[in-house]
Amino acid sequence: TELDMSNARTASTVSVENVRDFLHHGRSAWETRRRIVGILENDPIFDKTRREFLTRTEKYERGLVLTDRVYELQTIHNWDEREVQVAISSIDEQLSIGLHNIAFQPVFMLQGGPVLVKKYGPLIATRAIFGCYMQTELGHGTNVSSLETTAIYIPETKEFEIHSPTITSSKWWIGALGKTATHGVVQAKLLLPGGKDMGPHLFFVQLRSLHDHTLMPGITAGDIGPKSNGGFAATDNGFARFDHVRIPKENMLSGFASVTDDGLYQQPPHAKLSYGGMLYIRANMVTGGGWLIAKAATVAIRYATVRRQGEREQDGLEKQIISYPSVYYRLLPILSRAYMFIQLGKTLTKAFDVMASRLKKGDASLLAEMHATTSGLKVYVSTNGVADIETARRSMGGHGYSAFSGLGRLYADYLPSVTYEGDNFVLDQQVVRAALKSYHAVFASSSPTVDSLSPSSAYLRYLVNPPAVPSVFAEKEWRDPVTAILVLELRAALVVRELVQNAEARDASANQRVSKAVTEAFVATQAGDMIKNALKLPGNDGKVVSKVFLLYLLTTVEGGLTDLLSFGVIGPGSGFKIHDPTRSLRLAIKSLCEELLPEAIGLADAFGFTDWELDSALGVYNGKVYEALWERAQSEPLNQSEIPAAYQQSIKPILQRGQKLVASGKAKL
Amino acid sequence: TELDMSNARTASTVSVENVRDFLHHGRSAWETRRRIVGILENDPIFDKTRREFLTRTEKYERGLVLTDRVYELQTIHNWDEREVQVAISSIDEQLSIGLHNIAFQPVFMLQGGPVLVKKYGPLIATRAIFGCYMQTELGHGTNVSSLETTAIYIPETKEFEIHSPTITSSKWWIGALGKTATHGVVQAKLLLPGGKDMGPHLFFVQLRSLHDHTLMPGITAGDIGPKSNGGFAATDNGFARFDHVRIPKENMLSGFASVTDDGLYQQPPHAKLSYGGMLYIRANMVTGGGWLIAKAATVAIRYATVRRQGEREQDGLEKQIISYPSVYYRLLPILSRAYMFIQLGKTLTKAFDVMASRLKKGDASLLAEMHATTSGLKVYVSTNGVADIETARRSMGGHGYSAFSGLGRLYADYLPSVTYEGDNFVLDQQVVRAALKSYHAVFASSSPTVDSLSPSSAYLRYLVNPPAVPSVFAEKEWRDPVTAILVLELRAALVVRELVQNAEARDASANQRVSKAVTEAFVATQAGDMIKNALKLPGNDGKVVSKVFLLYLLTTVEGGLTDLLSFGVIGPGSGFKIHDPTRSLRLAIKSLCEELLPEAIGLADAFGFTDWELDSALGVYNGKVYEALWERAQSEPLNQSEIPAAYQQSIKPILQRGQKLVASGKAKL
Ligand SMILES: Cc1cc2nc3c(=O)[nH]c(=O)nc-3n(C[C@H](O)[C@H](O)[C@H](O)COP(=O)(O)OP(=O)(O)OC[C@H]3O[C@@H](n4cnc5c(N)ncnc54)[C@H](O)[C@@H]3O)c2cc1C
Ligand SMILES: Cc1cc2nc3c(=O)[nH]c(=O)nc-3n(C[C@H](O)[C@H](O)[C@H](O)COP(=O)(O)OP(=O)(O)OC[C@H]3O[C@@H](n4cnc5c(N)ncnc54)[C@H](O)[C@@H]3O)c2cc1C
Repeated sequence: TELDMSNARTASTVSVENVRDFLHHGRSAWETRRRIVGILENDPIFDKTRREFLTRTEKYERGLVLTDRVYELQTIHNWDEREVQVAISSIDEQLSIGLHNIAFQPVFMLQGGPVLVKKYGPLIATRAIFGCYMQTELGHGTNVSSLETTAIYIPETKEFEIHSPTITSSKWWIGALGKTATHGVVQAKLLLPGGKDMGPHLFFVQLRSLHDHTLMPGITAGDIGPKSNGGFAATDNGFARFDHVRIPKENMLSGFASVTDDGLYQQPPHAKLSYGGMLYIRANMVTGGGWLIAKAATVAIRYATVRRQGEREQDGLEKQIISYPSVYYRLLPILSRAYMFIQLGKTLTKAFDVMASRLKKGDASLLAEMHATTSGLKVYVSTNGVADIETARRSMGGHGYSAFSGLGRLYADYLPSVTYEGDNFVLDQQVVRAALKSYHAVFASSSPTVDSLSPSSAYLRYLVNPPAVPSVFAEKEWRDPVTAILVLELRAALVVRELVQNAEARDASANQRVSKAVTEAFVATQAGDMIKNALKLPGNDGKVVSKVFLLYLLTTVEGGLTDLLSFGVIGPGSGFKIHDPTRSLRLAIKSLCEELLPEAIGLADAFGFTDWELDSALGVYNGKVYEALWERAQSEPLNQSEIPAAYQQSIKPILQRGQKLVASGKAKL
Repeated sequence: TELDMSNARTASTVSVENVRDFLHHGRSAWETRRRIVGILENDPIFDKTRREFLTRTEKYERGLVLTDRVYELQTIHNWDEREVQVAISSIDEQLSIGLHNIAFQPVFMLQGGPVLVKKYGPLIATRAIFGCYMQTELGHGTNVSSLETTAIYIPETKEFEIHSPTITSSKWWIGALGKTATHGVVQAKLLLPGGKDMGPHLFFVQLRSLHDHTLMPGITAGDIGPKSNGGFAATDNGFARFDHVRIPKENMLSGFASVTDDGLYQQPPHAKLSYGGMLYIRANMVTGGGWLIAKAATVAIRYATVRRQGEREQDGLEKQIISYPSVYYRLLPILSRAYMFIQLGKTLTKAFDVMASRLKKGDASLLAEMHATTSGLKVYVSTNGVADIETARRSMGGHGYSAFSGLGRLYADYLPSVTYEGDNFVLDQQVVRAALKSYHAVFASSSPTVDSLSPSSAYLRYLVNPPAVPSVFAEKEWRDPVTAILVLELRAALVVRELVQNAEARDASANQRVSKAVTEAFVATQAGDMIKNALKLPGNDGKVVSKVFLLYLLTTVEGGLTDLLSFGVIGPGSGFKIHDPTRSLRLAIKSLCEELLPEAIGLADAFGFTDWELDSALGVYNGKVYEALWERAQSEPLNQSEIPAAYQQSIKPILQRGQKLVASGKAKL
């Protein structure tokens, strides 16, 4: 196995360094990362060898120990916020502090209003208070407008009274609320004097004493219990009920709206500006998803390189499983999506920064486009990412199901990304709404023009100026990315048109179909840019990396074949007469995979993960997977004594009952 | 929520009793089940309320306590083997005893040979010894012929010497081996005097002392550690190495082959007969998968009935989420697959019994067909089942991710079914091989006939006698099951023909495509029979249940659209001219779903699960999901003290570091 791995490294022609710098946004960013990961992995506190054996409570406690240590290290090494972020993300745990950093703090800073920000901003920035973002309730998640928690304004004392009238109004799922947070931003229905219901607004509420961590009067809170598949174990997702809890009026986050002393509602002129922050998390989820898929791809590709099983080759050895079509056809597309999403994340972050700086100047014109793009991509990346991690795990056969493979843990923690920050099936509706809006904007005039189309709806130009499409593509045409981009954009245009034409009677999965087509059209054009970009890499590296993006495009076309065939963009065959019109595409995918196969290890190494980061017996850099599995198994708690406690308690009684039955002659065969 | 549930029950028109008896194979089988489940759920030993909080070791120990108790109850209530089976399956845990009952015992009884069976059969039947099935090694799973464990025959002492020459020859993944089993059936490479390698054979080996459970001399064994997502926690999948362990010659399982005293190899005349047992597990996996999907469907449908979210309706209440197309379109097809697979399991068991009784008479003619069918169905049911459980869980939004939803646990335990008993991607190859064999048998003669086609390859008749197919089907034609069956069989025929024509250059996913098409064609014809069968149910019940099977058919057609369009069986549209040719199918699915919606609760109730069996806060019979979630959360260990231990250890230091930073004026905003 060691030899297989070093042979594969020798065979790979890409420069791991060049591609790594490309993925990591330059040599210096990579070196920062290496430096920080190096510090953590050499610090015994960040040891991972026993974490599979911890109870949930221990995992929660360990999460906070790691958090404390990261900030201690920050002081020691004088890390800036970006460096701390690198440290936290490389720990590979869902930490409670994440909610403070990613949800609580940005919302507070963007919406808090100047008074509150001045007072609490420094405490939040230094984690002198530990915050959580309290929106979801037992009874409501998606439908925020129906949240039941109330905030009644009391003009006499200039206070709000936060109250949970029902069991379903209990805040629920709130990360870090269970046992950790001292403060929270609470979504509550603002009720003005006279009972006027202004809908949900945000309030800053202290939850626990800063002296002894006891709950503040009137607040009941706790942890909501374990999660599916053992995911999110380190986070104390919690519940809370408020019993007429009073907070000062200034604690309303006034960036969006405020209440005058005597109870009148006021909205600032640029209320919309504060929305921008909400898109931040979704934009980040693209990058995050990309790197997670990259981990899964690294582990599975490495294992598939050293695992030999089945047919013997001339050298007498069994084949490396990565050489089986049914294995590489599963793994290489995953690799290609990791590359795609990592690059896409960079583009999106750039776009986000442009939007944010325009917003600061009072210009909200990019907001709608950003909203449409991030909704679609959030759905797309999380749905694919969850599926890809599982596909990678499954490709490893039985050993993939060992906790020591590491991918089960990634899966369990990543799984809820399809639900939080907007349930994917609900977000699909937003993508469709945006698409329809663009469509109607184009066709509102009698002579439609395409000038006003934003990048996310550029595909609609094909409805105005239909391209000439040959409906049969040869293998060699598929090798040109232009073909895939063309058919994917065309497909988006046609499914949207179909939806418009059937507006009165949508079928049951129409939104999912349209959302996917529209997002894939957008990503396809991005892939086109990335290929141009990749070709700037020195020599051979550019060629190889651009093939990775092409593989993304072709497998995406394959996934969209039903639409493409339905609308005659490709094909069709006709019954018993002709051959499968999808065959040229399938063969193009196969030959592309075969060209990429020798590069797979190099392309995976280029992600730059250390063994500590992967924490997988099957993904070890040196390929010695069997030694790693063996060693890890020895540390299983059950193996610490030869005779398990269950022997006296149960096994012996079971055996003895059988012996008695046999002895009594009552054993039937 | 309670009211929503009782309203739904009132609205449902099916007779829960009739459909339940139909699913459970008659009233008396149902009553047996009810009686046994009733005994278990009222026995405090089988309490499930704390199992989410147990450590892996505790889960293992609990598994054996339950096992012991089941057999104690067997004695008390005088249960027969079938009744014990009902008890064990209703416990909803992967128990180590399962390996004894399902793998070890059948293999031993079928292959053991008369001497061994006489000596050990009674001990095995009464569990006076506890067995495991030891095939897989660290280095080999799929490729059994390359197993490394050796069994050298020593004529001098008439013994075999079992030996593990390498680390990769360690037995691995063996259920019940880790800490429990006293004996095992070991696959080892038989080496005759002179070194002749006869390939893997089966040997009966004692692993642990029956006196004190210590490992026998020369044997090293232990647990392989935790599994992904916390699955299979109660089973001690284990490893073992043999250091020149001697066993008597009679311990070779001689049903398939034996060795004479002086070391000559002998095969009995009907060696093939012993193969049959292998198919037993796979056949059982169809039924088992069906009932698991049924559980997931019950939980998700119940929750979707009482969960209200989003748009308000005339009565001022938000919509029940099951009324959203994107929710029912996910859940009702799952319900339909549960119905299908449960019924399919019965057919398969019947076919298995016919085959087994023929085998007993020395007639192996049904073996090949049974092998082809069970391979395909094992892949099909497990792949769909795993996906369906996750789809059901995800449909429940955030609360679905709580461990208290119960579906994460089902998923984690069922997940490896895609890997064990033949990795699905490898089994696909067998399905394809069988299909090609049938194809060539038909076309071997110059005037092909279809008379010899077995049920699993009946679809090939369409290549000999092509049917007249209109390539556009109206919604009303889809309502006739004949349409779906026709197009699914035709598709199988065409993809197989395509494969034959491209034999020299298969694309990378050809096997998966063909296997799916072939299996779905077979299942489609079965669905046709089931619809006929269901219509025998009294009046309305028959109509409703047959719609469930029709929904299975139509969504299966939808999943096969790429093939159907490629080969012109359906459609095609042509570019910008005409509408989506798949629309009539999509609308047929939608209207069928809408007709089934009011019946969903009744159809789910008909599975007959109790709250104890489901063990899900979201699937409670009375619909009081929020109370159930609240109550369960209170029992979380972290909630047993107000201040967590982590406060002094980590939270306080984090907060204090922040306070110091703020005080020192170093806090940057
Ligand atoms: C791990 C995790 C961490 C979380 N952390 C936080 C946190 O820190 N703070 C916080 O406030 N919240 C948090 N949440 C809650 C999260 O935001 C919600 O789970 C999410 O918004 C979905 O809402 P829901 O769970 O109520 O699902 P629901 O809205 O009840 O959805 C259930 C089902 O109904 C469907 N559905 C709902 N509405 C519609 C509609 N209008 N049209 C069509 N279909 C619909 C959905 O698609 C889904 O299938 C967290 C959740 C998880 C799982
Ligand atoms: C929960 C669980 C319980 C188990 N219990 C037992 C038990 O009690 N007793 C026992 O003996 N075993 C047991 N096993 C082992 C199980 O039988 C094997 O995991 C299974 O046979 C697959 O073999 P493998 O794990 O070696 O995968 P591999 O064969 O290594 O497969 C790895 C990958 O390579 C691919 N591949 C392998 N060969 C080929 C080929 N020829 N062509 C194309 N692709 C190929 C596979 O599709 C897969 O993607 C258990 C496994 C699990 C997960």
